Amino acid sequence: MWAYNKKLEYPVNINSKDLKMAKYLADQYGGPYGELNAALQYLNQRYIMPDDKGKALLTDIGTEELAHLEIIATMIYQLTKDVPVEELEKAGLGSHFTSFDHATFPSNAAGVPYTAAYLQTTGDYIADIESDMAAEQRARATYEHLMDLTDDKDILAPLAFLRQREIIHYQRFKELRNYYLKNKI
Amino acid sequence: MWAYNKKLEYPVNINSKDLKMAKYLADQYGGPYGELNAALQYLNQRYIMPDDKGKALLTDIGTEELAHLEIIATMIYQLTKDVPVEELEKAGLGSHFTSFDHATFPSNAAGVPYTAAYLQTTGDYIADIESDMAAEQRARATYEHLMDLTDDKDILAPLAFLRQREIIHYQRFKELRNYYLKNKI
Amino acid sequence: MWAYNKKLEYPVNINSKDLKMAKYLADQYGGPYGELNAALQYLNQRYIMPDDKGKALLTDIGTEELAHLEIIATMIYQLTKDVPVEELEKAGLGSHFTSFDHATFPSNAAGVPYTAAYLQTTGDYIADIESDMAAEQRARATYEHLMDLTDDKDILAPLAFLRQREIIHYQRFKELRNYYLKNKI
Amino acid sequence: MWAYNKKLEYPVNINSKDLKMAKYLADQYGGPYGELNAALQYLNQRYIMPDDKGKALLTDIGTEELAHLEIIATMIYQLTKDVPVEELEKAGLGSHFTSFDHATFPSNAAGVPYTAAYLQTTGDYIADIESDMAAEQRARATYEHLMDLTDDKDILAPLAFLRQREIIHYQRFKELRNYYLKNKI
Amino acid sequence: MWAYNKKLEYPVNINSKDLKMAKYLADQYGGPYGELNAALQYLNQRYIMPDDKGKALLTDIGTEELAHLEIIATMIYQLTKDVPVEELEKAGLGSHFTSFDHATFPSNAAGVPYTAAYLQTTGDYIADIESDMAAEQRARATYEHLMDLTDDKDILAPLAFLRQREIIHYQRFKELRNYYLKNKI
Amino acid sequence: MWAYNKKLEYPVNINSKDLKMAKYLADQYGGPYGELNAALQYLNQRYIMPDDKGKALLTDIGTEELAHLEIIATMIYQLTKDVPVEELEKAGLGSHFTSFDHATFPSNAAGVPYTAAYLQTTGDYIADIESDMAAEQRARATYEHLMDLTDDKDILAPLAFLRQREIIHYQRFKELRNYYLKNKI
Repeated sequence: MWAYNKKLEYPVNINSKDLKMAKYLADQYGGPYGELNAALQYLNQRYIMPDDKGKALLTDIGTEELAHLEIIATMIYQLTKDVPVEELEKAGLGSHFTSFDHATFPSNAAGVPYTAAYLQTTGDYIADIESDMAAEQRARATYEHLMDLTDDKDILAPLAFLRQREIIHYQRFKELRNYYLKNKI
Repeated sequence: MWAYNKKLEYPVNINSKDLKMAKYLADQYGGPYGELNAALQYLNQRYIMPDDKGKALLTDIGTEELAHLEIIATMIYQLTKDVPVEELEKAGLGSHFTSFDHATFPSNAAGVPYTAAYLQTTGDYIADIESDMAAEQRARATYEHLMDLTDDKDILAPLAFLRQREIIHYQRFKELRNYYLKNKI
Repeated sequence: MWAYNKKLEYPVNINSKDLKMAKYLADQYGGPYGELNAALQYLNQRYIMPDDKGKALLTDIGTEELAHLEIIATMIYQLTKDVPVEELEKAGLGSHFTSFDHATFPSNAAGVPYTAAYLQTTGDYIADIESDMAAEQRARATYEHLMDLTDDKDILAPLAFLRQREIIHYQRFKELRNYYLKNKI
Repeated sequence: MWAYNKKLEYPVNINSKDLKMAKYLADQYGGPYGELNAALQYLNQRYIMPDDKGKALLTDIGTEELAHLEIIATMIYQLTKDVPVEELEKAGLGSHFTSFDHATFPSNAAGVPYTAAYLQTTGDYIADIESDMAAEQRARATYEHLMDLTDDKDILAPLAFLRQREIIHYQRFKELRNYYLKNKI
Repeated sequence: MWAYNKKLEYPVNINSKDLKMAKYLADQYGGPYGELNAALQYLNQRYIMPDDKGKALLTDIGTEELAHLEIIATMIYQLTKDVPVEELEKAGLGSHFTSFDHATFPSNAAGVPYTAAYLQTTGDYIADIESDMAAEQRARATYEHLMDLTDDKDILAPLAFLRQREIIHYQRFKELRNYYLKNKI
Repeated sequence: MWAYNKKLEYPVNINSKDLKMAKYLADQYGGPYGELNAALQYLNQRYIMPDDKGKALLTDIGTEELAHLEIIATMIYQLTKDVPVEELEKAGLGSHFTSFDHATFPSNAAGVPYTAAYLQTTGDYIADIESDMAAEQRARATYEHLMDLTDDKDILAPLAFLRQREIIHYQRFKELRNYYLKNKI
């Protein structure tokens, strides 16, 4: 089980209103290569890892991805909070407003709801860890796309932090795979 | 952010192998009225609650639903662990095995992957809390269906606990709605 | 069975061309909190209501939601009828035009096709009626969002009528729930 | 708008319990070639028909498909009403029961929820009427499959009626298409 | 099996950058009436055709639709190649860029991923061929919509070619249907 | 473009009728780790590879996956050809028969239609090739699951061939990734 700590893993303080970024950031919330999918994938896969080392790593990274999910949600929330409907509409958020007003929603940037069809698990731990390594590469690439879409430092700082974490996760998954292959577990 | 505590909210120790229940329990994992959807719905909605009282309640219950998700995953895992493929197949788990082997997967009982199309939020906190009350009623009904499908005490005990929690969550959401309506927040 | 009456439940006569509203109105056509889903949910649930009173109410409101669906379709149709493709494109309807030309289509405002994943039924009539009450709250909120998105009186009048109907439906569902709870049916 | 008439277009009185048919009949409820999709497709397309003749035909057949939807729902309801959970499970309805108890749900026979991705409209009335002709052919084929799956006369009689109606609808759509082609409308 | 020939069925040389067309062309890539769905539908259906004549026609047209899919992908690729992110964003491709950068993706014009829910087969070869005829009509209509959305000759020429091929495919499917009906196969 | 060669990449001659395998094999047809998804993923990604070497490899393997798709479809077709409906039903194919009769359909083993939500591309060629490596691992694991589900030599032989090809594809993708990393392309 989890205990909630009322603190973000990385601080979010957005002053400007680069509103279109609220739309694009959704991709890391409920998109195919986003934090929700990563968290669910790792927490779901941990049961079939062959030893405690693997179970612990997947629990650890899965739990951190939940913290990342919270960072992304907070960014979207701060970007749109109290913004009048006319401005939301101009920024291309009219469709989102129609359904959800100022609330966040786990969809991709185009508004397609999150689906567990994105989530990969085969019950074969080598295949699963390779899938996790690839997931981290895709998350890294998505953060780079998001960083290409804005100049706002308040947005860029948490994105740079999150991108860096994905690179570290990739390394940790790679080490685990190599450990299992080497030790023929 | 969340800290992981290596302990289930309610103990799971399944000795018998009522295998078909592994299939049905998926409904509370990735089904329309299941724990994953509840957790995401409440954690997603908390940002638009009008005061700290509401934000705290949604965070609190959303976090508990993550713990419930873990209980359900553990139950499915224990039910199928080390069971030979022939037995899985006889119990109607052949399709699941083809894709996922002994791993769990967030789908409903029929194998339809979880979709955030199940998740409800409108940005209107009264509508959202009523949606949460209704979600708790549906979760309660689903637990009752699951309890009708087995006589195994190892399975019934955690299901009874979880059902009871949904009833308490319903009450807490109802109190919050009434507090907001009474105080015209 | 149903007999068609060539008359709208509320008149629709749109003279101006607030084109972007055609896109947003789709949310009440095939969106998660829209009229199609409401009609199907109530007409689907009526069989498991415990008495004729409940069956009649769900049939009655389900049938009225079909009439609302027709109002929404007529509004979208009138808004876009004979509008040149260049204007549709400027209003953000280029993607819609590519697939559907000037036809309507049951999707949400972002273009995601209607899915019965939105539809809630558990076979437990108390849970189902609470789900209907919550559905009416979400429909009310969505009408309010749509009314915030336009100043066109030709559009606002039917939306105000429809919003009011949802509030009345909510009351009727609440009365039914309370009647069942009081009489321990 | 529509007025409800408390009478089925064709009587349904099922005495035996060919339970697996409840599962298969869902295909005509919420499946790809089922009555819900037909009703929505025709009622949605009618606005772009080039004259009143076309609009009237689509409204007429669309309204009849709603009556067919009601026949199918009634058949599924009668087949499963008051059947104990053990028998439902033996007939392969355990997954359905988990989510929906004895309620119906608009999915296909495998339990995949209805999606408007099945619905075809292009805004080109010739393409749309050909799509309707093809839809009627698929519905006819599906009724034939269902009739191959049972020997129960209580079930076969309404299926034979419904199959016959699809053949007539096909003819009426074909006549409309030919009329438009001949008259170069 | 198939052998690849490094040559397009129709040449694509796009010099201008009518960027919004990249978004709309996706509809023929992964949209409901697009080339991917046509290719899969015909190649999937060929097994149940009653003779070699039918199997050959479906294989032949299915294989050609793969070539069309490649033409569409090449057009989207050429339209967006090396275009700076700012220009992509202005053209409404910001959401696409977030997930996919300059890569293509099989979705419809609104960004909804391709689903085989679009694909029609009943195992009844007459119903299936009528479905194919209707599919060709819808593809023709979609090409006409796309041609209405641009004045760029580099784009119009391949679209006109592709539209013409759909008309020919429609004729060939119609001849096959009539041959089967006449010979009572 | 592609030329069709009326020959399977590996011969399929199934004499026995291990019918349930028809259901499970669907997973390699339209499932998340199946041949359709692999073919589309590689053919879609090839445009953004940085040189001809990468484009050629993706075209080559993508084209071979189309041949694998044909092998799987032929296996399913041979397994069910001319089998009476009663036998299909006993083997758990009743739901499939209702919609599709003896035709194949691109779904997973549980009957969920193929969705391009399974397909991964980011426009970052390193991330994409890692995604392809992981896809091959998952396909290998799925073939191993299928081989665990049958003793029929007619089925096992093509599955063993296909599994072997996935291992080779994995190696080729890995070499390409390493080549790009080493040469800092």
